[in-house]
Amino acid sequence: MNIQRVVRNLVTTKRHFWLTTQSLRVVENASGKLEVALDPIGCKPGDFVITVEGTAARLATDNPKITTDLTIGGIIDHWSEDDW
Amino acid sequence: MNIQRVVRNLVTTKRHFWLTTQSLRVVENASGKLEVALDPIGCKPGDFVITVEGTAARLATDNPKITTDLTIGGIIDHWSEDDW
Amino acid sequence: MNIQRVVRNLVTTKRHFWLTTQSLRVVENASGKLEVALDPIGCKPGDFVITVEGTAARLATDNPKITTDLTIGGIIDHWSEDDW
Amino acid sequence: MNIQRVVRNLVTTKRHFWLTTQSLRVVENASGKLEVALDPIGCKPGDFVITVEGTAARLATDNPKITTDLTIGGIIDHWSEDDW
Amino acid sequence: MNIQRVVRNLVTTKRHFWLTTQSLRVVENASGKLEVALDPIGCKPGDFVITVEGTAARLATDNPKITTDLTIGGIIDHWSEDDW
Repeated sequence: MNIQRVVRNLVTTKRHFWLTTQSLRVVENASGKLEVALDPIGCKPGDFVITVEGTAARLATDNPKITTDLTIGGIIDHWSEDDW
Repeated sequence: MNIQRVVRNLVTTKRHFWLTTQSLRVVENASGKLEVALDPIGCKPGDFVITVEGTAARLATDNPKITTDLTIGGIIDHWSEDDW
Repeated sequence: MNIQRVVRNLVTTKRHFWLTTQSLRVVENASGKLEVALDPIGCKPGDFVITVEGTAARLATDNPKITTDLTIGGIIDHWSEDDW
Repeated sequence: MNIQRVVRNLVTTKRHFWLTTQSLRVVENASGKLEVALDPIGCKPGDFVITVEGTAARLATDNPKITTDLTIGGIIDHWSEDDW
Repeated sequence: MNIQRVVRNLVTTKRHFWLTTQSLRVVENASGKLEVALDPIGCKPGDFVITVEGTAARLATDNPKITTDLTIGGIIDHWSEDDW
């Protein structure tokens, strides 16, 4: 799993069916690279989270048919920019 | 998922069976790296999109036998080069 | 598999269901990049370990429904910073 | 999918069973990195191709038991070094 | 598949169950990065090999339950440092 920080929400009005009802967040890693993760937990910008990728990302949702390859798996309790 | 921009269409007359009837787009990421994504939505050059990779890419088509490892999952409403 | 070193434990009070009862470790690779691995073996900080990723990471736990994409598969007997 | 160029054939007399009867090609990407792809189409050195990775690579052969993680999925009609 | 060179054997006395009876080799790529591959063929240090990753790595063993994400798929007949 990777350690990433939630940057903001992502709005996409035209989406694939299995993604339509899901919350998507823009997340960044330690080097500032941006990705998009599905959020089944309810995170807010600034949260440090662990993200799960690949087939595990689909299993980390309620429905493995959801076509995500990156899902937030938890919010880290104690983490700051200095830990990165 | 990754955030990529559609560059142009890709024409390949000699293709694997499961790709033959699919629309393929050349997409680039923030650092200019090119990849090829299957487009089940109907994007045009310049659109910023989220792309899904791995097994989820196949599930994001109508038929999981389609041999794609990268599929466009949605068009982002508000994104510009400055957001990258 | 990759060769990584255990840095410390990771505490996340708000986690996805399938990760709740699992031990998570922050691990680093030769270039200092941090990731989070599930630890079914019982490692301590400083241990050099081999980590398994992808679907194999789930199979390396007791339950393939556990939504990990990185799992510690073994502790390396003889390895030091010089070997990296 | 990635855009790669066929460099040459690869000869391996001692191979895993599921790879023995397959044509393997050395391919390079835009930055010159070499990989090995299974070729079910019949490419020649110099061809620009799209390659499929992961589980899709196995589905892009006649037999998903073939242990490839990279398979050529099509020959690109119009592509040159300048497009890279 | 990737082209890697066998560096040496890897000894791990404390291993995950499905890896216990398998031969593991430290392999390096063209840029010197080290990884660990399962070796079902019987390679020796210095051999240039093709390695298979992901789910295909598990299929390239006798038992897909073996929790490997990187398996040696063949020994390359003619390859030297100059080819890298």
